Amino acid sequence: MRSYKIPAVDESLRKDLLAMINGKTKPIGSLGKLEEVALQIGLIQQSLQPELKLPHVLVYAGDHGIAHEGVSAYPQEVTWQMVMNFLNGGAAINVFCKQNNIELNVVDAGVNHDFPAGDSRLINNKIARGTANIVRQPAMSIKQAQSCIDSSANVVAQIADKGSNIIGFGEMGIANTSSAALLMCVLTGIPLQLCVGRGTGLNDKAFEKKLDILKMVLVKRGKPNTPLKALATFGGFEIAQMTGGILQAAERKMTVLIDGFISTTAFLVAHTIEPNVKDYCIFCHQSHESGHARLLEYLKIRALLNLNMRLGEGTGIAVTYPIIQSSVNFLNKMASFESANVSTKLE
Amino acid sequence: MRSYKIPAVDESLRKDLLAMINGKTKPIGSLGKLEEVALQIGLIQQSLQPELKLPHVLVYAGDHGIAHEGVSAYPQEVTWQMVMNFLNGGAAINVFCKQNNIELNVVDAGVNHDFPAGDSRLINNKIARGTANIVRQPAMSIKQAQSCIDSSANVVAQIADKGSNIIGFGEMGIANTSSAALLMCVLTGIPLQLCVGRGTGLNDKAFEKKLDILKMVLVKRGKPNTPLKALATFGGFEIAQMTGGILQAAERKMTVLIDGFISTTAFLVAHTIEPNVKDYCIFCHQSHESGHARLLEYLKIRALLNLNMRLGEGTGIAVTYPIIQSSVNFLNKMASFESANVSTKLE
Repeated sequence: MRSYKIPAVDESLRKDLLAMINGKTKPIGSLGKLEEVALQIGLIQQSLQPELKLPHVLVYAGDHGIAHEGVSAYPQEVTWQMVMNFLNGGAAINVFCKQNNIELNVVDAGVNHDFPAGDSRLINNKIARGTANIVRQPAMSIKQAQSCIDSSANVVAQIADKGSNIIGFGEMGIANTSSAALLMCVLTGIPLQLCVGRGTGLNDKAFEKKLDILKMVLVKRGKPNTPLKALATFGGFEIAQMTGGILQAAERKMTVLIDGFISTTAFLVAHTIEPNVKDYCIFCHQSHESGHARLLEYLKIRALLNLNMRLGEGTGIAVTYPIIQSSVNFLNKMASFESANVSTKLE
Repeated sequence: MRSYKIPAVDESLRKDLLAMINGKTKPIGSLGKLEEVALQIGLIQQSLQPELKLPHVLVYAGDHGIAHEGVSAYPQEVTWQMVMNFLNGGAAINVFCKQNNIELNVVDAGVNHDFPAGDSRLINNKIARGTANIVRQPAMSIKQAQSCIDSSANVVAQIADKGSNIIGFGEMGIANTSSAALLMCVLTGIPLQLCVGRGTGLNDKAFEKKLDILKMVLVKRGKPNTPLKALATFGGFEIAQMTGGILQAAERKMTVLIDGFISTTAFLVAHTIEPNVKDYCIFCHQSHESGHARLLEYLKIRALLNLNMRLGEGTGIAVTYPIIQSSVNFLNKMASFESANVSTKLE
């Protein structure tokens, strides 16, 4: 795996950006989180007139051997069926990306299905037809984990080369909340039962079973001592590829949009590898999946929205995108007290 | 004042709408609040394929005699200066409406300024050049309050006649958090100190002064026994006109978008007059102004977003609008499990 050199964002423009934000015709601070986002993107782009260019969402899809243990409310075949749904334009992420003019690609990180060739929206990054069942063995080899990170970095580099400067990371993979919960547990030290949730909608009995299985996996596999080993041990291919994509996007100084629980877990791995990656990331939506609130709290991050969504696919990113655009727009397009001849605050 | 006949929404389509929502290719409930919004708009429009047509935001501007008591961090002239800023396209609400293709008009409900004639974006509904100072006398006469409600209803009726079916209510008026806090207090019974906030950004000393003045006003003016008398007693012209606009929009079965603290106070008055108005309203953003959270709690309402904004103007509506559009879009455009051949939940 290549090493990453991600500097913290250069803070030298902070004062000028704040002066611009505070000079706009509004009470100081009254645009709340939009002001924070405008500041962050200005710093990432090192510009007083930041622009969002060619927004892109990548949906990484992968299968999980542990799906066969009954840890999800849906059968494994839903992963490939949903990939076909993405390619046919019928999924939630299609609708929201189309609405908000976001380019969408699907990355086959390791789905247990052979897709028809020739669809340019599907990027073939398949490592294998699903990870191994982590009840029995590690999800993948270290070499496969490295390959995930590097091949995904190439995808993101190509998107950056085309001129995109803002990219979001979504996913699809039946049973991937199991992998994410285990990664969260071993990388944060938060007890497993606080990392595990109901995923796509398990009932009480199935949820208890999922928790028991994951406890057993944790005992069997132990605690890996590097983020790469954690990815290899618990999977999945899509999470490892998202990690690589996030690192690459930050290195290219793109604004990185993080979605829900799985996407934040991929961020967690990237952040463990290179803490400065955080400067480039905007957390779009706090998922209803129970582990996500705790993970955000651990990372000292507040997501922009909380609409009780828990769908994945990058849908939290796509519905939040216009608000990020609003942040940049107010910075670029609002009048200042001076230019509009509006009286300033009384003292 | 004419009387309003606003029926509760007809619930007969609820079952069919829920079946459609639950049949989309996503786990049940996984689009969270977007599903609630889609259901609500489907019921308002009595349609399984609801559409948002010609979205409109009205910014009602009015001046307040109490501004001269030093209850705001900004001088009264900022009201008219900001109206000019709206007309010149430089304010936050201009930027966000333009971004999201929302038509914007400014209603001069009673600004202490003569605006140049001939700008079609400015609707002249001026009752007087600002309300009376409520420290000394009621804000307006009962006749003026009635006139506010009726003249604003006409504005909304014309917008409905042009084919718009979704409309938002924003405002601008230096010192109007004072009127709103008093209205909230007398119409809900919540103690005044829990209704009063820092508005555009008062410091500790000025905030204490504002609270003392409003306590004195409350003692002097007493508790009016009808919503119309409450409007006349505490003002302002813009709040009273928003009340009339909200009632009219609901009567026309438009989807009504409520903004922050002032806008919700106007809703509160409308809701006290006609409780069914609630069925037609979507509450876009919970303001950072302290009374708003308590008012929403009292009304048993959760706003869609909380971005720590506290600017007014309808900005909470305009930045939320794409998410409301997303709600309607997923209902109309997503594939179903059946149409996309995706396997449903395991039992």
